[in-house]
Amino acid sequence: MSQTRKDRGKAVLDALNREAGEAQAQALADIAPDFADMVHEFAFGDIYSRPGLGMRERMIATISVLAAMGNASPQLEAHIQSALNTGLSREEITEVLMQVSVYAGFPATVNALTIAKRVFARQPETGRD
Amino acid sequence: MSQTRKDRGKAVLDALNREAGEAQAQALADIAPDFADMVHEFAFGDIYSRPGLGMRERMIATISVLAAMGNASPQLEAHIQSALNTGLSREEITEVLMQVSVYAGFPATVNALTIAKRVFARQPETGRD
Amino acid sequence: MSQTRKDRGKAVLDALNREAGEAQAQALADIAPDFADMVHEFAFGDIYSRPGLGMRERMIATISVLAAMGNASPQLEAHIQSALNTGLSREEITEVLMQVSVYAGFPATVNALTIAKRVFARQPETGRD
Amino acid sequence: MSQTRKDRGKAVLDALNREAGEAQAQALADIAPDFADMVHEFAFGDIYSRPGLGMRERMIATISVLAAMGNASPQLEAHIQSALNTGLSREEITEVLMQVSVYAGFPATVNALTIAKRVFARQPETGRD
Amino acid sequence: MSQTRKDRGKAVLDALNREAGEAQAQALADIAPDFADMVHEFAFGDIYSRPGLGMRERMIATISVLAAMGNASPQLEAHIQSALNTGLSREEITEVLMQVSVYAGFPATVNALTIAKRVFARQPETGRD
Amino acid sequence: MSQTRKDRGKAVLDALNREAGEAQAQALADIAPDFADMVHEFAFGDIYSRPGLGMRERMIATISVLAAMGNASPQLEAHIQSALNTGLSREEITEVLMQVSVYAGFPATVNALTIAKRVFARQPETGRD
Repeated sequence: MSQTRKDRGKAVLDALNREAGEAQAQALADIAPDFADMVHEFAFGDIYSRPGLGMRERMIATISVLAAMGNASPQLEAHIQSALNTGLSREEITEVLMQVSVYAGFPATVNALTIAKRVFARQPETGRD
Repeated sequence: MSQTRKDRGKAVLDALNREAGEAQAQALADIAPDFADMVHEFAFGDIYSRPGLGMRERMIATISVLAAMGNASPQLEAHIQSALNTGLSREEITEVLMQVSVYAGFPATVNALTIAKRVFARQPETGRD
Repeated sequence: MSQTRKDRGKAVLDALNREAGEAQAQALADIAPDFADMVHEFAFGDIYSRPGLGMRERMIATISVLAAMGNASPQLEAHIQSALNTGLSREEITEVLMQVSVYAGFPATVNALTIAKRVFARQPETGRD
Repeated sequence: MSQTRKDRGKAVLDALNREAGEAQAQALADIAPDFADMVHEFAFGDIYSRPGLGMRERMIATISVLAAMGNASPQLEAHIQSALNTGLSREEITEVLMQVSVYAGFPATVNALTIAKRVFARQPETGRD
Repeated sequence: MSQTRKDRGKAVLDALNREAGEAQAQALADIAPDFADMVHEFAFGDIYSRPGLGMRERMIATISVLAAMGNASPQLEAHIQSALNTGLSREEITEVLMQVSVYAGFPATVNALTIAKRVFARQPETGRD
Repeated sequence: MSQTRKDRGKAVLDALNREAGEAQAQALADIAPDFADMVHEFAFGDIYSRPGLGMRERMIATISVLAAMGNASPQLEAHIQSALNTGLSREEITEVLMQVSVYAGFPATVNALTIAKRVFARQPETGRD
């Protein structure tokens, strides 16, 4: 059953952003491998995989929170990529980050847009974006 | 034109949560009436009314940020109501707040759910929720 | 196995602060019962119950974080009680909260001490404290 | 010498807001009397009493930080009063709080203005304000 | 009229720190040009340009908030330069940052002083400072 | 007497992490030497050196707060080293940082573990760890 949670989480994370998920698991492997498992199990296996809210909506919540907090740049960068992978367009992501400015201030948005720009630059623009 | 921004903002805010908008404007009227106008003009006239992201998505971003910050209870309460008014179901709002826990911790979610419960209790449950 | 995590978590929480645990579970029961389970399973079943760090040390970490964040008063109040139940003395708890001031500022400590005072006042002082 | 720091701090705090200073010292007296002394000695004796920046400027910094943090309402309320006592006008205080919105978001300013309104209401408006 | 807000904002920002303003506008130009306009219009055109508080006082509020937040280094760096340009001396800026420590903790001040040192080092010390 | 506070603080800091203490004092020496003294006097002379709580417990509180805040990486890095020097094992430090995740979210813990890994890598592992 715990295996199931981990498997379910790994499947979700692989679909969202396999590269970032594996990089994080590897980074944690020699200091806190159990915590890497918990990320798979709790974050992705328990929360992200719940019915009742689409993955697109979950990514909007996630990048909004990370942009507002302003102290979790690696996670914001990874999940802006996840948001793209989930089908949010560049314009939608940009709008979400602008929305954050009302509640968390202009620097939160400017700094998040700087990260978004870096993510967007890493891949060819598709017709959709 | 500034009038236009204010009118556009007022229209957005009236559709989202007229009661909370008017309560805030009235509360600010005798200390910072210009700031009440700026809320109408910048927050709702400039940001919320932009095309490129639906109102439903904007409300997900807003309540996520407010829940994560954990220091803006009046605004979170008002905008959980706005989220309901925009068509998010109780279940979706609850899921958004649970999603926040991964990034901002359990107390952020528990305290936001406590506020959501209060908002939900104020109105008869509809078939949709 | 998930049952086991929940049971293990419930046992930890019952030993720490059964009253607060039950109050929170009850408060969440009609809005997000699954989240109440996750508190039992992840927070108390996965993290708190790990070997490698004593419960006394976990409570020091917990009340330090909650005092520093300054936006989670209900949790800080509950866990100052948990800290007492775990065997931390009033003096030790007070010193932990004073230590926080260096890193999170004086208001964090003053406001946490105000909460601690309320918790301490609810029970007869024992010889140990 | 430590006595001197305490005396100097007490003099500064008495000039700024004797009532709030005494209320805080009394509140801390039976839980952390040493911390009340440290507030007098470090905050007011060491920092506030330094030459090189006027008291008016120090109060602008203080209420800006407290408004931005949004989790220290008792301190913000006390120091908006201190700011008035130092000679800042109601308009200046209101403008400082509006300035905060650019960097910390609209809720920080709205909630701080709500507190300011309460402080302003407690005393007759003078010609200056 | 919107043109007027933008022009007024641009004039304020040019006087404060033209270099940083242009760098930010350029950085945002290919991801969120509208947001760059909003910074000019709302932050500098609406807020900074209001009468009722001097620019010197606005800069004290700004660098205090940014130092306390601790998650907006590029903005803090830009506005310590703006503060110098507005006529605040190095000593005054240093005192403002020290004042922040009382409310936001020692790391906020130490990290802000590290940034201030970098800004101060970029220009010859004048007689005034 | 102030000399005594400074000496006492210097002794505490030298025992905890002389290298980091001297690096910080040197970094502050040409911008805010008085603030470097205050770190010695208030943080280490007044707070850390108080009886009533062991140094091991103080370090748990400190690294918990710094990990939760997420905006004070240099201080977190220095004090994870201090924690090792005080006798906390790598496993205990890792557990403390995992405990933080419940209250401050997963990114706080992941980013703190990344810093801990860097500190741990700088020294040969002893039998104890």
